[in-house]
Amino acid sequence: MKKINLASKYKKINEHWSPKVVAEMNDYQFKLAKIKNDFIWHSHEDTDETFIVIEGKISIEFEDETVELSEGEMIVVPKGKKHRPYADEEAKIMLIEPKGVRNTGDIVSDLTSGDNQWI
Amino acid sequence: MKKINLASKYKKINEHWSPKVVAEMNDYQFKLAKIKNDFIWHSHEDTDETFIVIEGKISIEFEDETVELSEGEMIVVPKGKKHRPYADEEAKIMLIEPKGVRNTGDIVSDLTSGDNQWI
Repeated sequence: MKKINLASKYKKINEHWSPKVVAEMNDYQFKLAKIKNDFIWHSHEDTDETFIVIEGKISIEFEDETVELSEGEMIVVPKGKKHRPYADEEAKIMLIEPKGVRNTGDIVSDLTSGDNQWI
Repeated sequence: MKKINLASKYKKINEHWSPKVVAEMNDYQFKLAKIKNDFIWHSHEDTDETFIVIEGKISIEFEDETVELSEGEMIVVPKGKKHRPYADEEAKIMLIEPKGVRNTGDIVSDLTSGDNQWI
């Protein structure tokens, strides 16, 4: 049985917006990411997506509102809902979603990250 | 869109070993619990189960080892694996698992908690 220390895992992340898998539960994955500045508008047609803020502050822009989240706060973005995450300063987040979800959802851009990259 | 503040949710929890649902992602739930002292040996035959320590320290005893987890650490207990969580001092944990999972798994005891209790 292997426990996962989030702080140790974050030390292995050098890029922004590039989620790395740290654990798998059934067909779901726990991913850690460092984020800063703007991401792109996208949605995930087939699944909800959970964001938990581990350190710092992030915002998630929706078409009708913007939600700000600080350390110790989380949100579940419903499937199909367009969203755009951003962070003015570097923040550390955990994403939980089914295996195989593309970080940019329905969009392919230079922010699209390789899938299933474990650290 | 509603964000969830974990600290606020924990203020609504008065009992130990009684997981409360704070969010749902597809057919999975995020549950918060305060735990202290000993839980019972049990397993979940149909699903993995994720523990994240939000505050304090916990231990999970397996048949062949005991894993200690502190704040910022997590573990995925594989389906079917017997385990017994305990905490010498009160600790705050998050559980992630499919909707409908009984906290005592294959066992029914006075520690069995009502399912699907939202806070």
